[in-house]
Amino acid sequence: MADLNNIPNEEKNKVIPKTQNYSSSDCLQEFNDVSEIEYSHAADLAEHLETLSLEKQLCLLTRLPVSEAAEAVAELEEHARIDILENIDPDLAASLLSEMSPDDAADVLDELEEAHRDHILDNIDADDAEDIRHLMAFDPDTAGGIMNIEILILEDYINVDDAITKMRSEIEDKEVPYYGYVVDESDKLVGVISLRELLVAKHGTLIKDIIKEQNLITVTFDVAKEEVAKLLSHYNFMAMPVVDKEGRLMGVITHDDIIDVITELASEDLLSMVGAGYSESVDTPWKESVKMRLPWLMMNMITSSVSAYVVYLFDGTIAQMALLAVLMPMVANQAGNTGQQALAVMIRELATTRFETKRAWFAVLREGKIGFSSGMILGFVISFVVGFIFSNYALGFVMGAALILDMLLGALAGASIPLILKSLGRDPAQASSIFLTMITDSAGFFVFLGFASLFLLS
Amino acid sequence: MADLNNIPNEEKNKVIPKTQNYSSSDCLQEFNDVSEIEYSHAADLAEHLETLSLEKQLCLLTRLPVSEAAEAVAELEEHARIDILENIDPDLAASLLSEMSPDDAADVLDELEEAHRDHILDNIDADDAEDIRHLMAFDPDTAGGIMNIEILILEDYINVDDAITKMRSEIEDKEVPYYGYVVDESDKLVGVISLRELLVAKHGTLIKDIIKEQNLITVTFDVAKEEVAKLLSHYNFMAMPVVDKEGRLMGVITHDDIIDVITELASEDLLSMVGAGYSESVDTPWKESVKMRLPWLMMNMITSSVSAYVVYLFDGTIAQMALLAVLMPMVANQAGNTGQQALAVMIRELATTRFETKRAWFAVLREGKIGFSSGMILGFVISFVVGFIFSNYALGFVMGAALILDMLLGALAGASIPLILKSLGRDPAQASSIFLTMITDSAGFFVFLGFASLFLLS
Repeated sequence: MADLNNIPNEEKNKVIPKTQNYSSSDCLQEFNDVSEIEYSHAADLAEHLETLSLEKQLCLLTRLPVSEAAEAVAELEEHARIDILENIDPDLAASLLSEMSPDDAADVLDELEEAHRDHILDNIDADDAEDIRHLMAFDPDTAGGIMNIEILILEDYINVDDAITKMRSEIEDKEVPYYGYVVDESDKLVGVISLRELLVAKHGTLIKDIIKEQNLITVTFDVAKEEVAKLLSHYNFMAMPVVDKEGRLMGVITHDDIIDVITELASEDLLSMVGAGYSESVDTPWKESVKMRLPWLMMNMITSSVSAYVVYLFDGTIAQMALLAVLMPMVANQAGNTGQQALAVMIRELATTRFETKRAWFAVLREGKIGFSSGMILGFVISFVVGFIFSNYALGFVMGAALILDMLLGALAGASIPLILKSLGRDPAQASSIFLTMITDSAGFFVFLGFASLFLLS
Repeated sequence: MADLNNIPNEEKNKVIPKTQNYSSSDCLQEFNDVSEIEYSHAADLAEHLETLSLEKQLCLLTRLPVSEAAEAVAELEEHARIDILENIDPDLAASLLSEMSPDDAADVLDELEEAHRDHILDNIDADDAEDIRHLMAFDPDTAGGIMNIEILILEDYINVDDAITKMRSEIEDKEVPYYGYVVDESDKLVGVISLRELLVAKHGTLIKDIIKEQNLITVTFDVAKEEVAKLLSHYNFMAMPVVDKEGRLMGVITHDDIIDVITELASEDLLSMVGAGYSESVDTPWKESVKMRLPWLMMNMITSSVSAYVVYLFDGTIAQMALLAVLMPMVANQAGNTGQQALAVMIRELATTRFETKRAWFAVLREGKIGFSSGMILGFVISFVVGFIFSNYALGFVMGAALILDMLLGALAGASIPLILKSLGRDPAQASSIFLTMITDSAGFFVFLGFASLFLLS
């Protein structure tokens, strides 16, 4: 048998035809003794799996205890996981998913094609399958889509001793083991209580008396996961309760889910700013990346033809003085960089804090001041440098003045674009760098060539 | 008395002379009844404080219970906190800091000037002050700089029942209340045990028998906080133990500290990519932002003069055919955008996963394929469009060919720059966008104008 480990990555990702489902009997002899492979943690096992060929991945997974295999599959990178679940024996796939917490299982199944998904769900125990289907009904970008439902519920009329007993008996299966979610008779969430609070309370105290003073902070199931991340990091919570419109408890979102959301959102900001695919990583097949990026590159081409048209208007000016074509990109480039600095600050502001109109205008004004003062300094410097090098101080003056104006504009545009995109209901980062470049290029060319034709040529 | 609330932001931040330290007796009459102001959480109180004038901030803080005031101050934004601590009565400052956990207090004090810091430390209880000084000795960008030291230590020779009793009695003061850190007789960390594990273990079981099978994952105090963030999110840990070079327990880093680190690092990537200040936000005074950005804008000016020089070399070519100056920025811009997409993917890769050389080269190759294929598609389109518009298919061909070459180069440069910066021991994002633009601009101008002078003019 060929050593599949040495086959380049592209080959490895090829999917084995679906009719040939893999089961443990196909396993390679050499790979028989799984006990040799010991990993301290599922995340490490997942990382190891990602370096193997699909065949070896399947082989290893079928030999591992189901609970370990399930944890590793939950930790895998999306592409690898899809390949595995589409090629593994459906019974095994079903038992892997049953072992996962329902929210992980729902996330995993969301990635699969519908037919395949239903096939696996049919093989899962009915109760588990219902939980999973329930979670899959939520938009994956909202609180409902990332919440856990395996939590400890405490009725508000019980006392701390009964609560401790209940927490202790259920502690093994819960996602947030040291917290109880307190509900009233209509299932409305009325408080959150930690084991720590239970332990320090007097014997016999009613739960309802402990939580009386609480200001409960919750999110409804339809809140964007981005907002949940902001709230959870604002309050430094271990977990955030999710409720329905009537305030009834639905689940909780835990800190580890939020770490994933924050990491994901940070990548999305950076990637979408330049028009790369939202969810792209080094592991995305390159053809998919081309498909995701090409529309934005096309758009960049169209927007950059706007600035090309500006230059075209001054065709005659350049023909008279080719030196202008030398200096023109410097003006545009400098303003573009200034604008990108403002853009970066603003995108992070919108990503990490709650939006306030007053603060937003303050921020635009702030960038305006920065752009103008930096422009004054650099404009002054460049006037002299250009004037001296080309022994043409009028040209230096034109360049300096154009630079100041374009840098001011770049700063204001960079700060405003994310705000405008947001107010249009779009992602504040999406293609913002492309819009910005269009503005700084067009304006830079126009002002510089315009001033030049006014003051340098007659 | 004038209403300080209506004074614009700049004014508000003015520091009251240090000789006039503020104490509660100076408080405004109207503000006397603090009980009216109720906040559900310190983070909300901090947010409210940030909207007040310094005078009102100080007034409110002096009237609040010390523990609440301390929590709010710990949550404040850095600039606001510095203003408050420099102007508040030193005794009150000391009691606020004593109420904080030592790691928060150390972070806060790190922000102050040395003289002021020492003055406050002298007013703090000697034991607390020693803890704080100990923590301040660590580099704030390392594990030691963000760790908590208030943790439960369990000796490995005790049994689960004694461990539960100990955890229960100390649960109120601990930062990670449901975990015990198990050490041997030489203080070496030998395991981590959760209350959950203690509760499900048989009575009388020795701690050492429970942790026997554990593969302990720790970091040493000098590991960069970025690495800690990667590890903690890789393993989905609630907390990561920090040890010294001999494996002795020093502290732990908790999930909420890591959420802050991840958010901070994501901002740093985006900001440093374009040469803005690392820690800039909308709250940074604008003059400070100018100071932080100006060096990079200067550098951008110098690097863009490289590409201007390339154009200068083709001065004569442009004088013969001004149309080239119209199309030239389009080539450079398009390659710049392609390169930025590669840059974004690579910066996120380096920020979120552990670096592997093989994977890095695979990623550069992948971007090369993407750049080349997108270039082929767009180059083909632009050849015809330009050829048709200007009835000059030779010009179209030159433009298309230059575009393909420059987009390929942009993609390779975008993917390589972060790797090169990293291998030089620099931040992979730092000014990467500026370097990239220099490369794509210079190469774009050179190839396009070079081809033009070879094939279009004779």
